[in-house]
Amino acid sequence: MARNTQVAADHHAPAVTQILSQHVATHPGFAAGGWNETVDHEAHRTFLNWLGCAVGAAQHESVDSALAAVQLLQPAPQASVLGRSEKVDMASAALLNGISSHTFDFDDTHLKTIIHPAGPVASSLLALAQHTGASGRELIDALVLGIDVSCRVGNAMYPDHYDRGWHITGSTGTLGAAAACARLLKLDVQQTVMALGIAASQPIGMREQFGTMTKPFHPGAAARAGLMSALLASKGFTASTKALEAPRGMMQTVSTKNTWSEIIGALGQRFEISFNTYKPFACGIVIHPAIDACAQLKAKDVEASEIERIELKVHSLVLELTGKKEPQDGLQAKFSVYHGCAAGLTFGFAAEDEFSDAVVNRPDMVALRRKVVATVDDAIDEASADVTAVLQDGRRVHVFVKHAIGSMQNPMTTALLEAKFRGLSEPVLGAQQTGELMAACWGVGEAATLDAVLALAVPR
Amino acid sequence: MARNTQVAADHHAPAVTQILSQHVATHPGFAAGGWNETVDHEAHRTFLNWLGCAVGAAQHESVDSALAAVQLLQPAPQASVLGRSEKVDMASAALLNGISSHTFDFDDTHLKTIIHPAGPVASSLLALAQHTGASGRELIDALVLGIDVSCRVGNAMYPDHYDRGWHITGSTGTLGAAAACARLLKLDVQQTVMALGIAASQPIGMREQFGTMTKPFHPGAAARAGLMSALLASKGFTASTKALEAPRGMMQTVSTKNTWSEIIGALGQRFEISFNTYKPFACGIVIHPAIDACAQLKAKDVEASEIERIELKVHSLVLELTGKKEPQDGLQAKFSVYHGCAAGLTFGFAAEDEFSDAVVNRPDMVALRRKVVATVDDAIDEASADVTAVLQDGRRVHVFVKHAIGSMQNPMTTALLEAKFRGLSEPVLGAQQTGELMAACWGVGEAATLDAVLALAVPR
Repeated sequence: MARNTQVAADHHAPAVTQILSQHVATHPGFAAGGWNETVDHEAHRTFLNWLGCAVGAAQHESVDSALAAVQLLQPAPQASVLGRSEKVDMASAALLNGISSHTFDFDDTHLKTIIHPAGPVASSLLALAQHTGASGRELIDALVLGIDVSCRVGNAMYPDHYDRGWHITGSTGTLGAAAACARLLKLDVQQTVMALGIAASQPIGMREQFGTMTKPFHPGAAARAGLMSALLASKGFTASTKALEAPRGMMQTVSTKNTWSEIIGALGQRFEISFNTYKPFACGIVIHPAIDACAQLKAKDVEASEIERIELKVHSLVLELTGKKEPQDGLQAKFSVYHGCAAGLTFGFAAEDEFSDAVVNRPDMVALRRKVVATVDDAIDEASADVTAVLQDGRRVHVFVKHAIGSMQNPMTTALLEAKFRGLSEPVLGAQQTGELMAACWGVGEAATLDAVLALAVPR
Repeated sequence: MARNTQVAADHHAPAVTQILSQHVATHPGFAAGGWNETVDHEAHRTFLNWLGCAVGAAQHESVDSALAAVQLLQPAPQASVLGRSEKVDMASAALLNGISSHTFDFDDTHLKTIIHPAGPVASSLLALAQHTGASGRELIDALVLGIDVSCRVGNAMYPDHYDRGWHITGSTGTLGAAAACARLLKLDVQQTVMALGIAASQPIGMREQFGTMTKPFHPGAAARAGLMSALLASKGFTASTKALEAPRGMMQTVSTKNTWSEIIGALGQRFEISFNTYKPFACGIVIHPAIDACAQLKAKDVEASEIERIELKVHSLVLELTGKKEPQDGLQAKFSVYHGCAAGLTFGFAAEDEFSDAVVNRPDMVALRRKVVATVDDAIDEASADVTAVLQDGRRVHVFVKHAIGSMQNPMTTALLEAKFRGLSEPVLGAQQTGELMAACWGVGEAATLDAVLALAVPR
């Protein structure tokens, strides 16, 4: 029976479902001058980075497991599983590519909300585009607008929604995927309202799942649910026109904070994809400044073998989250700033391979991370690190990293992004095909179809 | 970045994910004396009633629309869509049957939580059972245990979770469907923990969707998600072992109230399916006592044509929710106690046909409902109605209904349940096949396979 006890229901929320749908369905897109080259380049970086993450994790056991489960449905061979030879129906492909692209926790990050936006949005789009034969430009335009929807809703609800327990990537990702697929399907405003409305009943993901396969399942399931919401809307399925903002709609049900202006402010002028970042290192973002600093020491010719001691000064949060001194395997090493420093000093970077069990247990790595002496200094920002190498001959080499590589202030260069892509893709597709795939990704906005990208993104 | 601001996180919750999984995976079932005949009969009633609702709505536009959308996936013909000739993959069949069985809002109700438990659980089970060739007994056992899981979790979170905006049928239904499918797949305890864990990241449904196709989408999507969670677990996919109860697990994320004892108390002794009820009338449950009273007046030979006035006394909530005096169509009539009284007096009942646009606009119905004078009397319980027919000759005929037919205290008889089933199924499958289908449902617990039920539940 209905009761009216909900705390602080907002009965005067603006019509954000309608406003976002209007934005997605009627925006002119890049070709008509809808955004500038910088925004569009960010969309290409987002696409390339996402694709590399998915290809790189294609043989991971979580993808094997999920693929075996969806194959029980005997899916139609409609769409590609990135980095693999199997084909499945487009909804299952959206699921699988969403899982693989987030499996290494190495994908993109919208730092304002810690949403990983490409997983749900790009995974749903590529599977649908393969089926509909969309152009590369249509895909990129839909990617920009889909990410705009999920991140704007995320901005409105963050941090309350995340603090409460939601994995915000999955819970807002369904909306982004639905919006992007609605755009790709050329749904009109009213149908787009329905797509967002159906998606609004399916927020996905609890933070308790972190550390299990269900974490990367969240962007995958969001991609699948968003794609299906758009397909349902295209066939006349109905939902509330106020599914996001109503007192018992999605947002007020899953968040106490709802800053509506974050959704409707500067719509069509500010694109949230402009604030997307790409991880250079395959681990939690609080370790990145320390790894960056140690990589810079290596670049200054500090040899691991001549190190007496590494003096590391960081904010207390860094040690609280990643203070594991003696990691026993790759997963634990992702929560060890000590291992991160050793990897930076030894390899100059820390991608997925540098967090393998084998590398983590190498005697030289064990010895080197024991030389790291970490102290807390809350005068140093969470996003910074102060590192001094004390050498056996008494020399001291100092590096202070204010903003690590990969941050908004110090973004990944194209060269670094390509190096990261190669590290992910070459073990799966080989060096030559990886190079061709990267070229196809950079040129996707001009491609008449996605055929080239799709052919190059699976093993020959 | 992690913060710890969640209100009143409970770090000492019992291990309900493990406890429920143990219950589902290791319960001996009916044949080994796990529950009595009364519980088992309720399971058959639940199955029969659910099947009739799904068959009855099989041609509804919401099912047409959803079917058209899933057919874009080119699904494998694995499983039947009830009441229709199409076959689709089992996950899509779970979705479609969940949608159709809830489309008329005429399915079962667990009154303690207002969960409609069969939609998610039976829809996922029948689709999976068709694929695996399970026996009828395996299906009924899994139905009892799946409903136990969803309703126990519902008991723990109700009413806060519902008040907050969640459509509790969909949000707990994913868990019930996952548990039931795990049981049918004979998953062990640890795999069942994973199935429940994966499902815990996918609560579905906001109350804002009431009145749209997305409302019946909720049990359908829950059936689909639960089935897929069990399939994923069967192939080694992992989730948190504390996905329900952890501070950032599902339950604490979506509900402030979590009465753990509702989940673990009398497990294996009290079965929640014992508290399942079936609607005799195709409308909101608060109108049922008034319809029942008017049907009793008709049984006392009160003729509609000789009525001067109907004096109806009800609790204020009844008029608050269903006080629409002049409904213009069938949907509005479902929120009109005035139309309900007219239907009871005219037909002696009020199934889906009696809420059709045509019946609602019949001149005799319009005239009759204008003779209903409703007054509020909060001394009368919400579940009761006091009705007096004042006839043109001055006679007064009085009926007081304390508990309407279909309530826990006055359950639907087998005869009424069969009459309801016929009303739903005969327009779709004809009288003879409907009779055979009912017989197959009553005997399903002894059936070696579900072949007979499945063959009879689709048009010949």
